[in-house]
Amino acid sequence: MAITVVGSVAYDSVETPAGKYDRRLAGAATYFSLAASYFTDVRVIAVVGEDFGAEQEGVFKARKIDIQGIERAPGKTFFWQGSYLENLNEAKTHQTDLNVFAGFQPKIPDAYRDSEFLFLANIDPVLQRRVREAMPHVKLVAGDTMNYWIKDHKSALLEVLKGLDILLINDTETRMLAGKDNLVLAARHVLSLGPKTLVVKHGEYGATAFFAPEKPGGAIRAFRAPALPLDEVVDPTGAGDSFAGGLFGYLASQGDVTPSTFRRAMFYGGVMGSFAVERFGTERLQGLDRKEVDARFHLFRELTHLE
Amino acid sequence: MAITVVGSVAYDSVETPAGKYDRRLAGAATYFSLAASYFTDVRVIAVVGEDFGAEQEGVFKARKIDIQGIERAPGKTFFWQGSYLENLNEAKTHQTDLNVFAGFQPKIPDAYRDSEFLFLANIDPVLQRRVREAMPHVKLVAGDTMNYWIKDHKSALLEVLKGLDILLINDTETRMLAGKDNLVLAARHVLSLGPKTLVVKHGEYGATAFFAPEKPGGAIRAFRAPALPLDEVVDPTGAGDSFAGGLFGYLASQGDVTPSTFRRAMFYGGVMGSFAVERFGTERLQGLDRKEVDARFHLFRELTHLE
Repeated sequence: MAITVVGSVAYDSVETPAGKYDRRLAGAATYFSLAASYFTDVRVIAVVGEDFGAEQEGVFKARKIDIQGIERAPGKTFFWQGSYLENLNEAKTHQTDLNVFAGFQPKIPDAYRDSEFLFLANIDPVLQRRVREAMPHVKLVAGDTMNYWIKDHKSALLEVLKGLDILLINDTETRMLAGKDNLVLAARHVLSLGPKTLVVKHGEYGATAFFAPEKPGGAIRAFRAPALPLDEVVDPTGAGDSFAGGLFGYLASQGDVTPSTFRRAMFYGGVMGSFAVERFGTERLQGLDRKEVDARFHLFRELTHLE
Repeated sequence: MAITVVGSVAYDSVETPAGKYDRRLAGAATYFSLAASYFTDVRVIAVVGEDFGAEQEGVFKARKIDIQGIERAPGKTFFWQGSYLENLNEAKTHQTDLNVFAGFQPKIPDAYRDSEFLFLANIDPVLQRRVREAMPHVKLVAGDTMNYWIKDHKSALLEVLKGLDILLINDTETRMLAGKDNLVLAARHVLSLGPKTLVVKHGEYGATAFFAPEKPGGAIRAFRAPALPLDEVVDPTGAGDSFAGGLFGYLASQGDVTPSTFRRAMFYGGVMGSFAVERFGTERLQGLDRKEVDARFHLFRELTHLE
């Protein structure tokens, strides 16, 4: 089944202990769609500026990602500059130029309307909700958000959460959203806000999925997927979006969300996250093949399974 | 097979967000031996003061733990006071009175000498080494240490590491010992110092075992075991020692250290750690039965396994 993703397509300038690069194609929707493209058809809704050309288009087209929903607007593409020099687990932002993103009004091409899966990457919850409402027939909706929206746009975010099947956020965001320090209690609270499943990303420690109880007050089930211990993290940028792309891409490829499919999807999320950070920017995600993806899936299995 | 453990038997006064207690039986060797006692025979070497009486002895005896190696010395038992009010993952120490522990000279009862497994809990590496050398016939030696010994007694510690089959420490200690920030590179370095296996404890995120490469410079294998997401951590004290007790206890009960046994042992480590933190002090570890332990093992399996 096909996925439509709405989110940022951007240029990043990034410095890490392994090196740096300037104004490379990036953004949550880019990482997500590249990662998901190894599993299923992906369609992108985003806005870019006049500095987005054939080279950038080519990155999507090489992975057969549909970009008719990437709108060209007068001006420059969203730009982010950050570094990970002191802490690979947390980006330090040096500059954010919203540029054309400031006026982003998502437009959904007709050809996207039969998408069964919808991913709302980290953007203004008002826009997330608008896209969600414009695609009422999707089977499954997942979304991401960040501390900024949790802190300063909570009521709009809460409206989005009501309509989500899966919310993917990190430990800090989960605790902030719930106002609780214990992760299980925080997860239970977040699940009471709407999402049927909460996936908490723990960075180098993997991720935990919490599933809403079948009846209110019941026990919540959990599933933990590992991250791969890597001897070099070249560039953490996009790891979370790539995790989301692997997870949601695999779910869409299966077309169902049984517990067993979801578990495998969590592993594929970790797999795509682990590839993403091995090279700068989107480089590693551009040049994989499905065989490498599945070989790494088996590594994850060996890393965690008793037999 | 029987385990001999050398380490601290102590009194703790602890405050956590869930409450507090005063001068309760604690110490690394206590937590370790209680946890290991669900799997195999355990023998303790430690020193206590005149304030250690029948009640404290009873805690060990109820679990059939051999305490003839617990020496009574004039004075008071080792005392530690700490709190976890701001951060459940890291104790804040308020007071440490070594008392009789200051002059601890481990004495090994003859009845302990046929122990096949030896655990060197976190004490002065000079003493760890002395006990190791006094028990040359053990089949497997594991040990723990802490930042204090890594920082200020490194050369003595390095001598201990040379003779270890398994070293169990946490993320921070691993990075500190290796002087490397990347965990995999740090693990590789620590393995080059002697231990055949390094188990890195990640607190609420579980633990990773790194196995020394078969030839120098070869790849290191890894295995990740989860921790159980808990909706209340009543008291984190002793979690790491209980993890070690579960892991080493299970290994000793099997008598071999095949990769498959080690994987299950990592899970049992997590299991015993998860019990330890559910109640104050050693309370939960005193009253378990093997059925509960195995039921939780299956929970850990469900939490991480695809099928």
